[in-house]
Amino acid sequence: MLIIGELINSTRKQIRKAVEEKDAAFIQDLARRQAAAGATWIDVNAGAFAADEVEKLRWMIATVREVCDAPLSIDSPRPEAVEAGLAMAGADAFLNSITAESDRYRTLVPFLKKYKARVVALSLDDAGMTDDFEKVYAVADSLIKRLEDDGVPPDHIFVDPLIRPVSTNGEYGIGALRIVERITLNHPAVHKTCGLSNISYGLPKRRLVNQVFVAMAIAMGLDSAIVDPLDPRLMANILAAEALTGRDQFCMIYITAEREGKLEGMG
Amino acid sequence: MLIIGELINSTRKQIRKAVEEKDAAFIQDLARRQAAAGATWIDVNAGAFAADEVEKLRWMIATVREVCDAPLSIDSPRPEAVEAGLAMAGADAFLNSITAESDRYRTLVPFLKKYKARVVALSLDDAGMTDDFEKVYAVADSLIKRLEDDGVPPDHIFVDPLIRPVSTNGEYGIGALRIVERITLNHPAVHKTCGLSNISYGLPKRRLVNQVFVAMAIAMGLDSAIVDPLDPRLMANILAAEALTGRDQFCMIYITAEREGKLEGMG
Repeated sequence: MLIIGELINSTRKQIRKAVEEKDAAFIQDLARRQAAAGATWIDVNAGAFAADEVEKLRWMIATVREVCDAPLSIDSPRPEAVEAGLAMAGADAFLNSITAESDRYRTLVPFLKKYKARVVALSLDDAGMTDDFEKVYAVADSLIKRLEDDGVPPDHIFVDPLIRPVSTNGEYGIGALRIVERITLNHPAVHKTCGLSNISYGLPKRRLVNQVFVAMAIAMGLDSAIVDPLDPRLMANILAAEALTGRDQFCMIYITAEREGKLEGMG
Repeated sequence: MLIIGELINSTRKQIRKAVEEKDAAFIQDLARRQAAAGATWIDVNAGAFAADEVEKLRWMIATVREVCDAPLSIDSPRPEAVEAGLAMAGADAFLNSITAESDRYRTLVPFLKKYKARVVALSLDDAGMTDDFEKVYAVADSLIKRLEDDGVPPDHIFVDPLIRPVSTNGEYGIGALRIVERITLNHPAVHKTCGLSNISYGLPKRRLVNQVFVAMAIAMGLDSAIVDPLDPRLMANILAAEALTGRDQFCMIYITAEREGKLEGMG
């Protein structure tokens, strides 16, 4: 499972404060702990700073890089921040995210090629959000084809079905799961990911809902997720789900995690 | 979710001892607690007693019935115990289980019709166990058709794909999940169940593995399970999984469970 650690995000109050106060130790601790917990990429988001996003993002990246070699995921709504971030991020960087929206696609795709970055491909186009899951799948399908035509290798594409809260519409969970499954079937070389936490918005015990949803999505072929890797049960569920889907030969990763005490208090 | 509570099973050491000592209070406490925790049926198994299985089973059923109205699931390898159990069980009884093995099928199917019992239809025929999941599906498919031809209504059939330990073959988890999904697609009126706990045999933190597997199977359409309903996280995962698959309108069952304190310490 390819984990994108989501915690260094300026829309979180603590992070915003740490960046404003240039509290490098706080950011570095979160980077180190996420990498140690199994994050493949560390997501960095300075989007809350608007006018000085680029400057803040550069500081955040430099700060993380001082203590942590993990590749970075650059998470920004602004093209100038995306470019500044990818330019600093180094090898194996991630762009979180591109969509099928015309302007966003046109602006961002050259960066993908220049920096050979992986990319979250969010199933969203100019028509905006829809409850018609046939359309959501069609947008994902055409976004994959367009990225491939534009020279992005299929294994650099991480399709995200655009997770929305199941509390607002009972179909949002199963609908996203079915899209993950169809991508798995029709685009075997393409990855599937999701920004997990939206699924549980508005419900009590949100972590429980996230933990269960990620297991279900792994059954459908999900092989990446943008999550809080410091949630030990979430990570344990991911390990168990990988063993249960035959991706962990002889369950050795699961058994090793147990020996290392990572499943303490569970089961 | 239709839950079959598995705890009153004579192959468990404590139960065997309680039955031998006619410790009615112990058995009754387990029946009451399983029903309170959400078991739709209480499974009763006296199979460990061999020669006096029928007598022990009758005592167990009468003992449970004194304190608990929940319908019963009769779990026995012996036709004479099945008939004695169903005769005492009353309305909405369950037979756990029938298979496509010729002798077993021929002997048990008349009891199903006589007692209008629901039945676990285990995907196993005279050829025995196989690692070929096409064959496992074919056995399930033909067992469904045969039961329907013999007058068992489709919504009385609970197909069980025959769960085997993922520690012995990495494909046993995903293989069973795919069968559940195909039954859902091809036989929409038929239920799917599974004897869950075999999946985790040989692994550490077995409950964690069971908890994750049941969520994955619910994503595939599982709507029943033979489980320990006294495992609070297992039941919480089931509630979350039902909300996530749109079976719990407006997530009200999930939200109510939280208000009743059933999700305490989770998430």
